[in-house]
Amino acid sequence: MTSPLWSDFVRDLEPYVPGEQPAVSGLVKLNTNENPYGPSPLVLSAIKDAASDELRLYPPPGADQLKLSVANYYSLEPNQVFVGNGSDEVLAHVFNGLLRHQLPVLFADITYSFYPVYCGLYTITHEAITLDDELGIRVDDYIRPNGGIVLANPNAPTGRLLTLSEIEQVLVGNPDSVVVIDEAYIDFGGESAVALVDRYKNLLVVQTLSKSRSLAGLRLGFAMGDSSLIEALERVKNSFNSYPLDRLAIAGGVAAIADQDYFQSICARVVDAREALVEELAGLGFEVIPSKANFVFARQPNFEGSDLAARLRDKNIIVRHFDQPRIKQHLRITIGTDSQMALLVEALKEIIL
Amino acid sequence: MTSPLWSDFVRDLEPYVPGEQPAVSGLVKLNTNENPYGPSPLVLSAIKDAASDELRLYPPPGADQLKLSVANYYSLEPNQVFVGNGSDEVLAHVFNGLLRHQLPVLFADITYSFYPVYCGLYTITHEAITLDDELGIRVDDYIRPNGGIVLANPNAPTGRLLTLSEIEQVLVGNPDSVVVIDEAYIDFGGESAVALVDRYKNLLVVQTLSKSRSLAGLRLGFAMGDSSLIEALERVKNSFNSYPLDRLAIAGGVAAIADQDYFQSICARVVDAREALVEELAGLGFEVIPSKANFVFARQPNFEGSDLAARLRDKNIIVRHFDQPRIKQHLRITIGTDSQMALLVEALKEIIL
Repeated sequence: MTSPLWSDFVRDLEPYVPGEQPAVSGLVKLNTNENPYGPSPLVLSAIKDAASDELRLYPPPGADQLKLSVANYYSLEPNQVFVGNGSDEVLAHVFNGLLRHQLPVLFADITYSFYPVYCGLYTITHEAITLDDELGIRVDDYIRPNGGIVLANPNAPTGRLLTLSEIEQVLVGNPDSVVVIDEAYIDFGGESAVALVDRYKNLLVVQTLSKSRSLAGLRLGFAMGDSSLIEALERVKNSFNSYPLDRLAIAGGVAAIADQDYFQSICARVVDAREALVEELAGLGFEVIPSKANFVFARQPNFEGSDLAARLRDKNIIVRHFDQPRIKQHLRITIGTDSQMALLVEALKEIIL
Repeated sequence: MTSPLWSDFVRDLEPYVPGEQPAVSGLVKLNTNENPYGPSPLVLSAIKDAASDELRLYPPPGADQLKLSVANYYSLEPNQVFVGNGSDEVLAHVFNGLLRHQLPVLFADITYSFYPVYCGLYTITHEAITLDDELGIRVDDYIRPNGGIVLANPNAPTGRLLTLSEIEQVLVGNPDSVVVIDEAYIDFGGESAVALVDRYKNLLVVQTLSKSRSLAGLRLGFAMGDSSLIEALERVKNSFNSYPLDRLAIAGGVAAIADQDYFQSICARVVDAREALVEELAGLGFEVIPSKANFVFARQPNFEGSDLAARLRDKNIIVRHFDQPRIKQHLRITIGTDSQMALLVEALKEIIL
């Protein structure tokens, strides 16, 4: 169903399809890389405090308090920080404000599948760079003419991590392009490229509070980079929506970043569960890509991915399968609690052994 | 400060400038048309209930429960409703998805100043149609070739209301254009054009929970129209951000729409205070444009608007002044509580008499 009343480009849009959010409860939900642990109790209490008559007032349009929290956390200036309604919104503004050039934007053929969708929305050409045979990024492939580069690090859905020196190669090789490092999963074992922000004016690092801060339901993301890159994002944001972050999100985000002890403890639990799961999966004949994220990407050579996903679903366990060349046999499995992981391993044993 | 790393269009962007959100307290804040009464207690309690471990999970991407609330409230089908992160975001998607055509979009020369900003963001040409001498919209002016029409009703900052039969003239005269009726202020005395949605496939009605539901701080807006128009907005939204509404906003929005008694009672109080203020202002020599909004637009022929605004600010009262042709002498004054209105009148008497 289309309509002549639509803007022309809408006919050709191919929207992003998010992982299922099942309405039924009681499922072991390992399909959208959410944190199995709830947000910090300090976050919940900050939100409850902010649920007051003050909601009648617009939020501070710049969400300055949250910017300051992020800046302090990473030893930056507030004008090196941009905040948005989830890192998806931040990335949308990045594609629009920093990546619309004559030359194509470069990103991996297997990566976050929202990137090509943004290109469709903003009429940006892109070139998909093929991952190597181990589904890894070869940084040499990104030294070629381009209108910008987007690297998820760790990459999704593979979980593979680039080192900071590999990222630096890309930055040095592309001084006239914005290099976006999308670090949605960085807190589960990677080292943030934010350490390079003061040295490379073409670097923009994007993070989210959805994963390591357990706040997928609150929608908070941010970008960090040279103040001139941030200025472009602010201009776009202020031409789109003056107040993208509501009062509750600002309060919750500030509290989440403040509670470092809780953050570190749940990240450590997820990492431990991941390492334990990797061992179990290996014992079941899976090939598991080394992951530094809160998920693993794995295949069992005797099973099709879609089949395995369906059989797990029959046992009330949801994982993510991508019907896409080269990864049809893979499953992306979010790291859950220890007991969820035990249920998963149990179910896989019943299916495979 | 610009940068060659920016997308070209960013250099020319002229972002929207929202009304001041002062950090100091104790001011009588009559500058951004917020509701002087807090949100329904049921809203605050729904938000507190939703501030739970479930925040670790993504929200339902379609915010279906909120769509259903709006649909039921206005006797529509859910596929006739689009929801977004404030009506500013909704309007942004409307301009992008429905108003990007060869011909210029039409809107009044004096209206919500975000409309030309959206045109800048999406490279849409527009034609500003001059209001008549009483700062009213002449609907005949909108019967001309165009790529879409946007009418704020009541208009802002004037407060003037078009009747449904005037809106119908615009709809009938423009069968091949989307006609957007932006009803941010409709609940303070106007009649919603949503009554026409089933008859005109080119009508899109936009509303917000910021004003009459006292939720400016929560960021909730929605659009209603033929399902084919809504489909275009969904495509754009799903190419931008899968989850623009967080779990707390969805819960709060549903509760706000459910509590009709509270809604009606605070709207009535605002309307009563407006009518009382209009009389007081007339007594002080103001010319007041007839308003059906939660603000009045008025001028005192012996004073410049900027001067009057500055003098009020000295007395800790903030109102909005627009430094724009034809309305330099006007002030836009938000309707506050009875006691805030008494303070305002007192201050004006000291200045004027």
